Amino acid sequence: MGITERIVFGAIYARRSIRRFEDGRQVERAKIEKLLRAAMAAPTACNIQPWDFIVVTERAIIDGIKRTIRQYGDYNAQAAIVVCGNSARVPWGDHGELDCAMALENIMVAAPTLGIGTVCVGGFDRAGVKALFALPPTVEPIGLLYLGYPGERKRPRTKYLEEAVHWNGYDSSRDSGP
Amino acid sequence: MGITERIVFGAIYARRSIRRFEDGRQVERAKIEKLLRAAMAAPTACNIQPWDFIVVTERAIIDGIKRTIRQYGDYNAQAAIVVCGNSARVPWGDHGELDCAMALENIMVAAPTLGIGTVCVGGFDRAGVKALFALPPTVEPIGLLYLGYPGERKRPRTKYLEEAVHWNGYDSSRDSGP
Repeated sequence: MGITERIVFGAIYARRSIRRFEDGRQVERAKIEKLLRAAMAAPTACNIQPWDFIVVTERAIIDGIKRTIRQYGDYNAQAAIVVCGNSARVPWGDHGELDCAMALENIMVAAPTLGIGTVCVGGFDRAGVKALFALPPTVEPIGLLYLGYPGERKRPRTKYLEEAVHWNGYDSSRDSGP
Repeated sequence: MGITERIVFGAIYARRSIRRFEDGRQVERAKIEKLLRAAMAAPTACNIQPWDFIVVTERAIIDGIKRTIRQYGDYNAQAAIVVCGNSARVPWGDHGELDCAMALENIMVAAPTLGIGTVCVGGFDRAGVKALFALPPTVEPIGLLYLGYPGERKRPRTKYLEEAVHWNGYDSSRDSGP
């Protein structure tokens, strides 16, 4: 196995959901900008780049997000990134959700190489976040990451499940739920 | 910059959409399995792992996909991976689209370290692919990758755009479309 393969797969496995962060240790702006470079290297359908990234480093606004999404996001993050999809740029009528998700995954894989931990907050109140940032009608918050210096350690892993892999046809007799 | 940072960001930038592949050079099963390990290292909301992966290596089935999705996927790929989300595993009623997209991004970032090129085929005919594989009602094809040994070279890049970054609030006076 080459060193590039080993390091890249290692980074992908090292992406774990970090929910405890070092208190009061801000994420440097230069590191956030690096992560956004990684984000915007993701593919987008027809190169539409449907995304905008709201980066939140101010405590009061982070607290506003936490109040909005309640129990799903009550972690002591030091920064947040909300990726938004803009339907005005998407000719086929969605918000570029898949593109936005791929951009977030790039951030999450890249962050630990800068010493930063992340967690993707799923299932948040989109309408609440949309109101919080006074987003225009066409701009929809798709995904939300919290960031900070990790206050917990987790082992690299994959959740690979052979039953989830179907070779040359879908086998509906299987249930590959975790 | 550390070597890990350099290699991981390099891999993220090296993910480019490859649309010409070496003819007749199959992607080894062992490499596909490695890529699926990377895929299933992506985060999923509440760890539901909503995904199934249909891996297609048989020529006749690849041709079937190509016929189904027509001009959007008319490349000489040697393998395809369809990631499907299963709404039966998602308590909040979608198909785990974002999780599936993140899994695909991991594959696309990892593949070049194995010498493999990929392209994500967006905007394909989901109903057609669903029929092709006789998927159950709860299983929805979310994303589709083509894979093969690259028949073209592209430079690493990011599409980073400063205008797409909003610090501590959304600036609706900007249009950051590409």
